[in-house]
Amino acid sequence: MSVLSKRLNLALLQFAASPDKHKNFYKVESLVSKALQTTPNLDLIVLPECFNSPYSVKLFKKYGESIPNGESYNFLSDLAQQHNINIIGGSIPEAASDGQVFNTSMVFNNRGELIAKHRKTHLFNIDIPDKITFQESRILDGGDKSTLFQLSNFGKIGLGICYDIRFPELAMISARQGAFAMVYPGAFNTITGPLHWNALARARAIDNQMYVVLCSPARDLEAKYHAYGHSLVVDPWGKVLVEAGEKEEVIHCTLDPEVINEVRNNIPVNDQRRFDVYNDVSLGAKVGDI
Amino acid sequence: MSVLSKRLNLALLQFAASPDKHKNFYKVESLVSKALQTTPNLDLIVLPECFNSPYSVKLFKKYGESIPNGESYNFLSDLAQQHNINIIGGSIPEAASDGQVFNTSMVFNNRGELIAKHRKTHLFNIDIPDKITFQESRILDGGDKSTLFQLSNFGKIGLGICYDIRFPELAMISARQGAFAMVYPGAFNTITGPLHWNALARARAIDNQMYVVLCSPARDLEAKYHAYGHSLVVDPWGKVLVEAGEKEEVIHCTLDPEVINEVRNNIPVNDQRRFDVYNDVSLGAKVGDI
Repeated sequence: MSVLSKRLNLALLQFAASPDKHKNFYKVESLVSKALQTTPNLDLIVLPECFNSPYSVKLFKKYGESIPNGESYNFLSDLAQQHNINIIGGSIPEAASDGQVFNTSMVFNNRGELIAKHRKTHLFNIDIPDKITFQESRILDGGDKSTLFQLSNFGKIGLGICYDIRFPELAMISARQGAFAMVYPGAFNTITGPLHWNALARARAIDNQMYVVLCSPARDLEAKYHAYGHSLVVDPWGKVLVEAGEKEEVIHCTLDPEVINEVRNNIPVNDQRRFDVYNDVSLGAKVGDI
Repeated sequence: MSVLSKRLNLALLQFAASPDKHKNFYKVESLVSKALQTTPNLDLIVLPECFNSPYSVKLFKKYGESIPNGESYNFLSDLAQQHNINIIGGSIPEAASDGQVFNTSMVFNNRGELIAKHRKTHLFNIDIPDKITFQESRILDGGDKSTLFQLSNFGKIGLGICYDIRFPELAMISARQGAFAMVYPGAFNTITGPLHWNALARARAIDNQMYVVLCSPARDLEAKYHAYGHSLVVDPWGKVLVEAGEKEEVIHCTLDPEVINEVRNNIPVNDQRRFDVYNDVSLGAKVGDI
């Protein structure tokens, strides 16, 4: 028995969000239609980080929405139901009722029900002099859990957002609790992207023998923040199966239970960990789906 | 203040061990002389896994030696003293007094004193049908600790052996306890080497913002086990600074405290971990130097 019960067809929508929210919704709709034309039996759609608004510390509050029942929530729920498809909704700025703002990913099943919500746990605060400075923590709060959810009858998926991928614990926890894939909507930039985007995806895949899916915005050189692009899927051997370029693009991939079984049988690290030498970080971790 | 107090010059000796132990010792001596000709102010020499004997489950017992005072122990101690240099002695089969056999790395300071010993913690048991099957656990026992030692007045180094690199915990523990580098003597093979050698080294370096040093035997197609070669040093940004080919080769590298400081200031993951969401795996881990 694999942690993934059957083959899963997914599509990643790589596009650049504009300041016009409705234009972004329209873009998502048109790309979903395009994806379904290519793969009619699509099981899962993944959107990029901050798909409904510009990625900007100054604008997170302005674009903040409530969950449930905010505009983007309703849009994604309707879209999932209309197309009978599961959607990992990238992320949006979430305005919580207590005034806090989060960078939050929502997951909807094919009946339009919210089945998981991840608030970015590790806030993106970096400062590479003369290259890039970005301080999410000036506005955002971090989530307080690792996120793992059951996707229909396929199996479990772990969910992180962008900078979360730099912290190996989230993927370790999800994998050890049975996930077949770790999905990170993420907007790396043109400085850290070439350095680390592929390497981090491959690291999480190899160490945990699971699929890793990264979905980025397309690069928009007119925007203030230049996303790296290069949305990709890495298999449990650490092989990049498909990778987008920098521009708007829909990429397709099929996840295969047999590949997970193969690597786990060939290199049985899951039975070889030495929890007498170090603790299992998945024990006692805060994990939830909503 | 950096975790590395000053620049450190190291050399990796990539060579293939023969069944003739004294021939292997002679090879080490000649390569150390060669390394010192290139870099007279060398601080540290690293040898490959199983430098004194063939890498073979059938032969581990035959070549097993006691620590301290076995033949390879005495050889390395004398060599370090003679050249006034620190040596991470790859690994040798260790015959313990109770009959157990380990795959063990010894570290000597420049006065020829044993300052650390790591017994491979995770035994290499893999089975990739029609490609490679190797079961260290048929003969070997695994060590029961993570290894971290102080190198002269440079700082601390974490030590693992080969397959240990597949388990991210050892590097996480060492880095969080102050190591500036993780060193793995290792003999990956021609199947898993191309898939994972570089990727794993870069993963440990990027996640932990430390140097990672892998020292392999040279490839010997007349031996039963075909080592991958490609000894390398990765910097804390995840950049491969120097990488050997497949044949016998001495490679040199300088580790720089400023590079560690730079990456840790630019991308401050060490201050951003969320130990309220998951435990710090370095707490409670079994760590020692001898």
